[in-house]
Amino acid sequence: MKTATQYLYVLSKNKSEYLELLKNADLPQLEITEDLSLANILLASPPMAAKIIDQCPKLEWVQSIYAGVDPLTQQPPRDDYLLTNVKGIFGQPISEYVLGYSIAHFRHFDIYQQQQQQQLWQPHPYVCLNEKTLVILGTGSIGTHLSVAAKAFGLTTIGVNSSGRTPSEGQFDQILPIAELHHALSLADIVVSVLPKTAQTKQVLNKESLSHCKQALLFNVGRGDAIDAQGLLSALEEGHLEHAFLDVFVNEPISQQCPYWQNPKVTVTPHNAAHSFPSQVMGLFKDNYQRWLEGKPLLAMVDFNKGY
Amino acid sequence: MKTATQYLYVLSKNKSEYLELLKNADLPQLEITEDLSLANILLASPPMAAKIIDQCPKLEWVQSIYAGVDPLTQQPPRDDYLLTNVKGIFGQPISEYVLGYSIAHFRHFDIYQQQQQQQLWQPHPYVCLNEKTLVILGTGSIGTHLSVAAKAFGLTTIGVNSSGRTPSEGQFDQILPIAELHHALSLADIVVSVLPKTAQTKQVLNKESLSHCKQALLFNVGRGDAIDAQGLLSALEEGHLEHAFLDVFVNEPISQQCPYWQNPKVTVTPHNAAHSFPSQVMGLFKDNYQRWLEGKPLLAMVDFNKGY
Repeated sequence: MKTATQYLYVLSKNKSEYLELLKNADLPQLEITEDLSLANILLASPPMAAKIIDQCPKLEWVQSIYAGVDPLTQQPPRDDYLLTNVKGIFGQPISEYVLGYSIAHFRHFDIYQQQQQQQLWQPHPYVCLNEKTLVILGTGSIGTHLSVAAKAFGLTTIGVNSSGRTPSEGQFDQILPIAELHHALSLADIVVSVLPKTAQTKQVLNKESLSHCKQALLFNVGRGDAIDAQGLLSALEEGHLEHAFLDVFVNEPISQQCPYWQNPKVTVTPHNAAHSFPSQVMGLFKDNYQRWLEGKPLLAMVDFNKGY
Repeated sequence: MKTATQYLYVLSKNKSEYLELLKNADLPQLEITEDLSLANILLASPPMAAKIIDQCPKLEWVQSIYAGVDPLTQQPPRDDYLLTNVKGIFGQPISEYVLGYSIAHFRHFDIYQQQQQQQLWQPHPYVCLNEKTLVILGTGSIGTHLSVAAKAFGLTTIGVNSSGRTPSEGQFDQILPIAELHHALSLADIVVSVLPKTAQTKQVLNKESLSHCKQALLFNVGRGDAIDAQGLLSALEEGHLEHAFLDVFVNEPISQQCPYWQNPKVTVTPHNAAHSFPSQVMGLFKDNYQRWLEGKPLLAMVDFNKGY
């Protein structure tokens, strides 16, 4: 049990909202500091934390407000502290995004919208999700949540991860190791990448791997680096992919020259498939802070070697 | 156990597809007839069946290919035969329609599509479905299926039915009797009517009842008669309803003068939220035909008095 005062530094573009939430939470022994040299805890956006982490001599713990922590784990500036990220929050919005856009696509929402403008009554055939197969790349917190929501719609769910081991949660009909990625992609009607950014996941979806897809929908809601842009555009042009729904990119916002904007087979959303709501992050932080004081293991610990 | 030959007359705009499926199914003792006076079984679209049912002196059983059988139950031309409809098939497509359009609405798919055309990167706030309440009017086969799919997204689910009794299936957090419709509507973020067409359900959603809604989304995927059109347009104008998604109408197709077409708060789809796929209907018919031969109670029996 820790008895000393804990000094927390908050680093987020929603800082004022976090400070208000912290004030209302009234956590014991916690003092908000504006002095990095005093802070032993950071509640922080990883890209912002990476820039100042060298200025925190007393740092012991960083609670990330995002799921992706790659700015702190790829060629890490330091790894002599505990790093926790956000788990259990983003599964819901990601599942809505993936299944919402999938239904909109397979059930022709765009076509009916156009027809309505033309006052045209014309039904179109469709195939329901329970005849489709969803391949989820990444079987962590988000991937498992998605598998459960997908199962409620009767989708066949295949998870792909580094080990090929079945995760303790989720509803996967099958788990394949990343070594069998090509086989997995050949089975997919929908491919979803929720992969973290690591050396192993970089451009894992490229011209060669995507050539194994058969008119699939591709979602990237993990990290932009998982996709090789040229390979993606080729796969769309050649019909291996029917449509790509992209929420994350190597550089954000994407440039005005980016070919994604005007490609009719690409849907671009501004990294908002899973928003980090401060009220939800605070729920996790409060739990973790209690554990921190009590000396218990923290939740959602990140392994610096794995990068997630 | 019936041993005599059974004479089946098929009445559908997909007749040739049904005949092909029947041929492949090779059902025992079954003969397809083109002679109404000989037929003891009809596999039929209810509006088409209503027109010829008087010409079938030997009629014993009608298997409807739709869920809605009102042309055969409202002021019924006759009720001296067994009537079965289709259950267990339409829950999946209706759930996709309702949850897909709900997600598209709450997650601003239209706005992002417009922004992409303008090459604009601008996230917008949103609220997830697990903070929303879904009120389902009708707790039969479709309503219960929808409640289960909705629960997978964490929605609070309230069912409304004539008795207020909890159905044996489904995942409803609460069941209210239709007498408490106004209260139910006041709780809803999303209202879905899957009501059959009966004397009791006619225009149950009207100016007065809809005035209890608070910026709700309204889906009609049951029967057009459940809604009073003027009441609906008023509720949209006054903000009791935020948007209406209409798949069924009193007269279909709707006329070119119908105000729904060009109302930006109305989405019109051409009675296709749940398509009747012959292959699925045949699955049910085969089961029921086996029961018929064996003298067992048929599945999905319709009560002429209730009308569903």
